[in-house]
Amino acid sequence: MAKKKLNVGLIGYGFMGRAHSNAYLKVNHFFDLNYQPVMKAACARKADKVKPFADNWGWQSIETDWRRLIDRKDIDLIDICSPNNTHKDIAIAAAQAGKMVLCEKPLAMNAKEGLAMTKAVEKAGVPNMVWFNYRRVPAISLAKQLIDEGRIGKVFHYRAKYLQDWTINPNVPQGGPTLWRLDIDVAGSGVTGDLLAHSIDTAIWLIGGIDKVTAMTETFVKKRPLQDDPKKTKPVGIDDACAFLARFKNGALATFESTRYARGRKNQNTFEVNGELGSIYFDLEDAHQLQYYNHKDDSHVVGWRTILVTDSDHPYMKHWWVPGCVIGYEHTFINALADFLEGLGTKNPARPNFRDALETQMVCDTVLKSAKTGVWEKV
Amino acid sequence: MAKKKLNVGLIGYGFMGRAHSNAYLKVNHFFDLNYQPVMKAACARKADKVKPFADNWGWQSIETDWRRLIDRKDIDLIDICSPNNTHKDIAIAAAQAGKMVLCEKPLAMNAKEGLAMTKAVEKAGVPNMVWFNYRRVPAISLAKQLIDEGRIGKVFHYRAKYLQDWTINPNVPQGGPTLWRLDIDVAGSGVTGDLLAHSIDTAIWLIGGIDKVTAMTETFVKKRPLQDDPKKTKPVGIDDACAFLARFKNGALATFESTRYARGRKNQNTFEVNGELGSIYFDLEDAHQLQYYNHKDDSHVVGWRTILVTDSDHPYMKHWWVPGCVIGYEHTFINALADFLEGLGTKNPARPNFRDALETQMVCDTVLKSAKTGVWEKV
Amino acid sequence: MAKKKLNVGLIGYGFMGRAHSNAYLKVNHFFDLNYQPVMKAACARKADKVKPFADNWGWQSIETDWRRLIDRKDIDLIDICSPNNTHKDIAIAAAQAGKMVLCEKPLAMNAKEGLAMTKAVEKAGVPNMVWFNYRRVPAISLAKQLIDEGRIGKVFHYRAKYLQDWTINPNVPQGGPTLWRLDIDVAGSGVTGDLLAHSIDTAIWLIGGIDKVTAMTETFVKKRPLQDDPKKTKPVGIDDACAFLARFKNGALATFESTRYARGRKNQNTFEVNGELGSIYFDLEDAHQLQYYNHKDDSHVVGWRTILVTDSDHPYMKHWWVPGCVIGYEHTFINALADFLEGLGTKNPARPNFRDALETQMVCDTVLKSAKTGVWEKV
Amino acid sequence: MAKKKLNVGLIGYGFMGRAHSNAYLKVNHFFDLNYQPVMKAACARKADKVKPFADNWGWQSIETDWRRLIDRKDIDLIDICSPNNTHKDIAIAAAQAGKMVLCEKPLAMNAKEGLAMTKAVEKAGVPNMVWFNYRRVPAISLAKQLIDEGRIGKVFHYRAKYLQDWTINPNVPQGGPTLWRLDIDVAGSGVTGDLLAHSIDTAIWLIGGIDKVTAMTETFVKKRPLQDDPKKTKPVGIDDACAFLARFKNGALATFESTRYARGRKNQNTFEVNGELGSIYFDLEDAHQLQYYNHKDDSHVVGWRTILVTDSDHPYMKHWWVPGCVIGYEHTFINALADFLEGLGTKNPARPNFRDALETQMVCDTVLKSAKTGVWEKV
Repeated sequence: MAKKKLNVGLIGYGFMGRAHSNAYLKVNHFFDLNYQPVMKAACARKADKVKPFADNWGWQSIETDWRRLIDRKDIDLIDICSPNNTHKDIAIAAAQAGKMVLCEKPLAMNAKEGLAMTKAVEKAGVPNMVWFNYRRVPAISLAKQLIDEGRIGKVFHYRAKYLQDWTINPNVPQGGPTLWRLDIDVAGSGVTGDLLAHSIDTAIWLIGGIDKVTAMTETFVKKRPLQDDPKKTKPVGIDDACAFLARFKNGALATFESTRYARGRKNQNTFEVNGELGSIYFDLEDAHQLQYYNHKDDSHVVGWRTILVTDSDHPYMKHWWVPGCVIGYEHTFINALADFLEGLGTKNPARPNFRDALETQMVCDTVLKSAKTGVWEKV
Repeated sequence: MAKKKLNVGLIGYGFMGRAHSNAYLKVNHFFDLNYQPVMKAACARKADKVKPFADNWGWQSIETDWRRLIDRKDIDLIDICSPNNTHKDIAIAAAQAGKMVLCEKPLAMNAKEGLAMTKAVEKAGVPNMVWFNYRRVPAISLAKQLIDEGRIGKVFHYRAKYLQDWTINPNVPQGGPTLWRLDIDVAGSGVTGDLLAHSIDTAIWLIGGIDKVTAMTETFVKKRPLQDDPKKTKPVGIDDACAFLARFKNGALATFESTRYARGRKNQNTFEVNGELGSIYFDLEDAHQLQYYNHKDDSHVVGWRTILVTDSDHPYMKHWWVPGCVIGYEHTFINALADFLEGLGTKNPARPNFRDALETQMVCDTVLKSAKTGVWEKV
Repeated sequence: MAKKKLNVGLIGYGFMGRAHSNAYLKVNHFFDLNYQPVMKAACARKADKVKPFADNWGWQSIETDWRRLIDRKDIDLIDICSPNNTHKDIAIAAAQAGKMVLCEKPLAMNAKEGLAMTKAVEKAGVPNMVWFNYRRVPAISLAKQLIDEGRIGKVFHYRAKYLQDWTINPNVPQGGPTLWRLDIDVAGSGVTGDLLAHSIDTAIWLIGGIDKVTAMTETFVKKRPLQDDPKKTKPVGIDDACAFLARFKNGALATFESTRYARGRKNQNTFEVNGELGSIYFDLEDAHQLQYYNHKDDSHVVGWRTILVTDSDHPYMKHWWVPGCVIGYEHTFINALADFLEGLGTKNPARPNFRDALETQMVCDTVLKSAKTGVWEKV
Repeated sequence: MAKKKLNVGLIGYGFMGRAHSNAYLKVNHFFDLNYQPVMKAACARKADKVKPFADNWGWQSIETDWRRLIDRKDIDLIDICSPNNTHKDIAIAAAQAGKMVLCEKPLAMNAKEGLAMTKAVEKAGVPNMVWFNYRRVPAISLAKQLIDEGRIGKVFHYRAKYLQDWTINPNVPQGGPTLWRLDIDVAGSGVTGDLLAHSIDTAIWLIGGIDKVTAMTETFVKKRPLQDDPKKTKPVGIDDACAFLARFKNGALATFESTRYARGRKNQNTFEVNGELGSIYFDLEDAHQLQYYNHKDDSHVVGWRTILVTDSDHPYMKHWWVPGCVIGYEHTFINALADFLEGLGTKNPARPNFRDALETQMVCDTVLKSAKTGVWEKV
């Protein structure tokens, strides 16, 4: 059967632009899908930046104004990989133009923007998804499966960490093409939107909605040079670190913590679920494994199992290599894209959609609010 | 040189009574000390319980009233291993009688009691120590040493967990000889006093004082049968789980969590320190190891080091076996006792003393208060 | 600068055909190279098998006779991914036709074949390489770097294992399109050529030549059904398991072991080097890590370091994502291809070339010989 | 019930003398036994050495001639902790005197001596045991239990390592009170008798008898100073390293390796069993854990389980502390002693007895023989 073409326009050419391009390029080689993405156009403000990027990745054309990209009749899907402060306007315009919209996480600068975006895609009725790629780490998908199979039972505890260490040096600049995540005006927040948003998305997916939180944040380095103008410094507005306590709506207790000041932790995104019947532990630095404790095992041989998530009966893995052969970071994007394409036109479109991501955004906003008020805040 | 005899009276014959008896029995075989404890008397209310205990461990006599024990002229040191609600009266009486006082943790039912006890031993000028035995895990002592050597630098983060899973079954009773830790009237609190007190003691020792906290607690099982009268149930007053955010006085951020509902975690007492120059991680379930990350290592070979803490240049280990041969849980008590005996009559008596333990008790009280008020509370 | 086109003809469409196709497709997106492979033709005997394969991966044409492929003027490079018993004839013909030759491992059915192939490519003067892809696991390349930097010093010991468990079930058939590795007539040997060849290649690369060996082999399942005709069985001629002791030419002692009967080990390819100054440990099931012990570390903090091999100063990693983001199995082929393309026309062409792979083949042959003679055999 | 007194005479005051003394001192405090060892006499040639040792450990008297000790009527049991070259004469004399005999491992300098010893104790009909203490690591006892429960099934593979690194420095002397293990005349062999004997004892216990072996040995440092006369050197006669391949009588394949030149391995005594139904892995450097892979687990959640061997239903652990609280190196001796005392006068005396240890000795001898002949040797 001939595959349906799906013409893609990508906005942004940075780290995520690269990860998404790779996904469009590879997805049909590994997944048998009805749709075939066509890499129609890459868009960014500076032609001298986006042209070599497009050439390298095989984007057929370039645009330097995202409005022009959205106007093009030959584009079916807008994929937003540009900085957070551009998400809202692009997404709303794309939806209004009837395009499908994919958007990098976090959804927006804040929940207000996110709500407007969500209403726009829902009103337009266009397929939409947010790239919370870690849901598509096979081990995390397996965690979801184990919970859905009833292997954990009533959940007592959830604890998540997302630790990095790359901003300890105060000479790391902010703003600019690669370090906008440190600039409050472009990123909206610090680790809360960048890292904890992942943790929260995973938590809600696995456990359910969060009811209330109490939080603290810290900015260890108070001012940083500008990447685009290194002689100037600007006060740092983002949260370098954030920790919060939470209650899920189902009563489970949770702790969340994120920082870029945990020396030696490079991308340590972990979570643990403790339930009546079992427990689960995951660490992104050992992404090919899931730890699982099954209380029903015979008591003298019960123990944490290290599941090597590379077998064909593990999520996504039948599409890849053979048992014992791992996939990597980039494959989470390919898996996500495959899910999106598979869900098109079905009753079960891929998630998280904008509505889901809005819920995560609302938790983020509530966390930052609580860090200011010092009291428990309802989401 | 002849060793000085130190006549010990022990109160309590439970799990801790056993651990302490073992320590008195062994300490001089492994440490070269000026003092030689003499196991003079074991004391508990029921003669039929304390007699076989005393016989088994070699206590020379028994008493069934702790006041009589304190009155005995042939006793130099009172060691309190009885339930928490007995600590205050015994300790104060012992101090007033001029006895040295060792006390199991937590110091008391609450800080008010703890303060009275602390004043009593200080007024009497008697040597005193609280058995926060985990300070004497060689790997934790090594962590302290690394921090004191400046290997961690300015501390950004501290995170501690103390997880167990033995009370998930609602049929586990409360009260009685072995389960008084589940009875609020005897224990004073749940995991906060029993487990988090350890975490807090270690944290203060390693990092310094805690300034403020915000906490949540939960009691998952609302009533339990009585161990002494299994047909009756009683509401559960203790905290089954407790988590809190904290700020150290030096500005470092911290998270603490404890529970007895973490399926698969048997005695997982962990902490991590993240500083500018390095990080440390410890897990009591792998007590023979310390994880250490040294940022100064050459960048292509930097990594978390698993230090096998069994060498003669590691804390306490020269007194034990040979490299690669581990010691166990019981040795933390022996190490602590050796430190106490070594410190007697010197300018550097062993710690934590009652004053130190009072500080931990005050943090515990503040945590429990915050869990009720829902706001940040100053210690 | 315009890239030079390099027209590739691929023989074989199985698991390796897929891995190589992916490499040709991706290499220029991640590496800045003078050469651009062009996926000209895929070749296999059955058109109905190779056509959909070629379509899926973007091979521009197909051939069903490898001799025709070699005859084509528009092909610069022949890449051999077909079963072991086809390597010799194809490689020699390709070399004689002046084509560059890439060949999957093991080089040949035996050293006699391998020698003929090696002479052919050397006589023709054509670039040649054998796909011992694990050299290009970044952690293994890092191991090589540490040794070359003198961090290990005089080597005392080497121990390698390559354990799998997928043939324990006696109903797994042999022969046929996907299970020819179990058929002695097609594979030449069992785990020795398939798995130990990897271990030996790595060992020689890291430590140097092997002088002599003494070996044992076992075939646990004596006959298996035919994949192509399941009602028939055929005696199993391959070695299911093989272990040998060895001496390197430099005097170091070694143990090697491989099996497909190690329940629970999926692709556990490990090696350890013990030297005067340090040690290294690697496990392919945790391929993103290298364990390193540096004897020069201060004695109280020395320990095995877990190096997370994802930083830009680790081999290959600057071409991929960011610290903490792993690559996977498939990337070893891409890294190898990049090295091959980078080496073209330089004084340092990529290795292992056929001559190197012949050395590995000779060790394999000697191992199998010793398993029969029961005595030490010189390589 | 009153315990029966068992009067012990200990020969040797070194590291093992200390470990055994500790065992006699503690065993009745933790195990409920019919017998109560009485520490009657410690014996060594030099009174000035053995006197303080005896005083420290509470031995009631000393002897300086082991013959006198054996002559004493008040001694029931002779425990041999002196160097290997003294085992034979003492054991035979003790047996002839009708004493029970405990002997440190290895049993003897060689199998010839061992056979004479075995015949002596069997002829005398005296209880006898050899201190292969690692059988009493709870995790190793659990491994035995799992095998006996049929959880592993038909065994395909066994692999054992025993790695240390303390003799790399060529200035480490040989001979003398603490380094006699490096002196061939006193020790009989190097790592084969000291370390591999442990590995072999465990292997035979778990899997069964060994049929044949092929081995290699190496002596890296060719001469060493004398501990007692450091200006003199003596050629090193022991094996610094030894590796061998083996076949069990049941057909399973095995590899064994031991060295004191594995930088970074302090006491890494490991074994792995691979069977049809499951696998087991143990590492003495994490002695509180046993790794277990159960092939019958559901395929998407199968994985290596880390069993924390601290629960009351694990071997020996009900005698010690509570779940999550580990025991250490010294407890293996206490557990062994408890087993010995429990077995006295029953139909199931504790093992390994001298006959068992002789079998291990014969394997050791055969290994050393094969290392010389270069061929497979039958045990």
